[in-house]
Amino acid sequence: MGARPQFIKLAALHRAIVRSDAFEHIIIHSGQHYDQGMSGQFFDELNIPTPHYNLDIGSGSQNYQVGHCILGVDAILEGERPDTVIVYGDTNTTSAAAIATAKRNIPLAHVEAGLREWDKSIPEEVNKLITDSVTDLFFTPTETGRANLEREGKRKHVYVTGDISLDLLFGLELTLDIEQIYKIRKGDYYFMTCHRAANTDNVGNLHQILMAVEKLDKTVIWPLHPRTKNAIDKLNPNWSPTHVKMIETCGFAETQALIKNASFVITDSGGIIKETYFHKVPAVIIDKQTEWIETVDEGWNTVAGPNASKILDVIKGWKRPNVHSNCLGDGKAGDRIVEEILSYLNE
Amino acid sequence: MGARPQFIKLAALHRAIVRSDAFEHIIIHSGQHYDQGMSGQFFDELNIPTPHYNLDIGSGSQNYQVGHCILGVDAILEGERPDTVIVYGDTNTTSAAAIATAKRNIPLAHVEAGLREWDKSIPEEVNKLITDSVTDLFFTPTETGRANLEREGKRKHVYVTGDISLDLLFGLELTLDIEQIYKIRKGDYYFMTCHRAANTDNVGNLHQILMAVEKLDKTVIWPLHPRTKNAIDKLNPNWSPTHVKMIETCGFAETQALIKNASFVITDSGGIIKETYFHKVPAVIIDKQTEWIETVDEGWNTVAGPNASKILDVIKGWKRPNVHSNCLGDGKAGDRIVEEILSYLNE
Repeated sequence: MGARPQFIKLAALHRAIVRSDAFEHIIIHSGQHYDQGMSGQFFDELNIPTPHYNLDIGSGSQNYQVGHCILGVDAILEGERPDTVIVYGDTNTTSAAAIATAKRNIPLAHVEAGLREWDKSIPEEVNKLITDSVTDLFFTPTETGRANLEREGKRKHVYVTGDISLDLLFGLELTLDIEQIYKIRKGDYYFMTCHRAANTDNVGNLHQILMAVEKLDKTVIWPLHPRTKNAIDKLNPNWSPTHVKMIETCGFAETQALIKNASFVITDSGGIIKETYFHKVPAVIIDKQTEWIETVDEGWNTVAGPNASKILDVIKGWKRPNVHSNCLGDGKAGDRIVEEILSYLNE
Repeated sequence: MGARPQFIKLAALHRAIVRSDAFEHIIIHSGQHYDQGMSGQFFDELNIPTPHYNLDIGSGSQNYQVGHCILGVDAILEGERPDTVIVYGDTNTTSAAAIATAKRNIPLAHVEAGLREWDKSIPEEVNKLITDSVTDLFFTPTETGRANLEREGKRKHVYVTGDISLDLLFGLELTLDIEQIYKIRKGDYYFMTCHRAANTDNVGNLHQILMAVEKLDKTVIWPLHPRTKNAIDKLNPNWSPTHVKMIETCGFAETQALIKNASFVITDSGGIIKETYFHKVPAVIIDKQTEWIETVDEGWNTVAGPNASKILDVIKGWKRPNVHSNCLGDGKAGDRIVEEILSYLNE
């Protein structure tokens, strides 16, 4: 798997696999560059066992990552000959492993299948399309995902499981004292993340986002993705408004505590969008669209795009909705996925 | 591009591009191993200019070819920054170039889009699915192709052009004296090809095919694909019935002359299937299915699969149909493709 959200999905599914005691689980880590800082921390905190293989893909162009990942996964598949390969989400690792698996004619299960943003200029969208084009078992979090797959003629072995990354949040105890750590008051700060290439690699978009942040009226806690840090350093190396606390990327439980107690979340991360919804905290999405349209439809989250005035307007004008349907999942997605894989293998 | 059928499509489109004088045409040759014997010969005979790039992929596992081809094409795209990338057919090169192109967010045109065999265990089917999942301009030979794409929700920029590889057959003069070259009489021999992995890599299937060939009642002219030669050598190195003339792979015009004058054609090649239909010569398909179902529906070709008795029954029982609708193309596919690419780029 690739970046943070994939680790969370892996952790949740691994727990379900261990619970089921039904099959051996061999884990491949692609070792994409930007994961290095996070991966050790995440693996420990989420109790993911040490991966059996690490491809050490490192950084490089998207095609560099995909090409090398195909070669690396192919060698492993040749040796291990697994009954099924499970891929997560929409990273370069996802599509590369999907291709390698399909080419070896091994059943492919895609966790988080069927999500679409209808914009092929987004790197993740290309990964989604390639992966689902050769998937055998589609595990989709929502009815929207199922409908998207149906539009593409994919009706067989499509399972709406709920979102697996939320599995970890049910029953999670948040004991960190973030008021002390960050010198903030609960309910009186913003939590922010920004990592999408559309925002970090586009100077105009990044400028808009920074303008919005500058004008915010409370402390902003912002764990900086390395790509974003580089982009800000290029745009304005001295950028550091006093109310903005830029921190290193933080762990899973700490992130949840920071989301849960924020007055508002500003993000372009699909994972964070889902987590804000779970914690019933509003979010403004600084991406042009979201795959988690259900959270927007219910009024919890709002798409503003990378536009300073829209971002500020959303935060100012938001009204708490009456409905929270837990539409993204009930904490049992992992168990459902294990069950369906077993039944597929017994077919 | 990859193997023989792709060279033919490239040759036809190149002629149309030259006629239009509308854009520069940069050609990448992937250099897959099995093409080496054929490619020089084909390039000369079909007047394809020397490729600007040769990736020299060589042989190896499918994933080896796809992975290295992605890396090779990526480097070229970075340097050349083309307005559109055109890929042909369903080889490993096709899907690899499609992935590399989509990852660089460059418009992708797929010549021979929309064909399906509904069996993901076929390597070419995986290439078709991956390629069409990220294609922007779909050039499909038939209405069946259009319907297949529509089933997958692909309706935009889908063009039914007719089959481009037939473009070269319209007006082609066949002057070779095959009676003298092969010591055969026109209309009194079988022409045979066999190269699909499902037949060459499956001993049972290959055995069935050889059994059928052994029992044929006329001379069989069989240009041997290197993969098939290796497979036969493994199965039975002494296999050489006196009525079977196994020859080296032959050129384009020679192949057409051999098809046109055969009493029946035995093949698992999509390209040859189309060509038999063009020449109004019956074919028995030794594959389990065909993408060119129109030729079967009209009664010219019949699917027997790799089954000795079925193959012989088809040849014995075939009756000439009353209809030949030229449903595969009218010789102008290349011109249509050039026109649509131009109009897309001007959008």
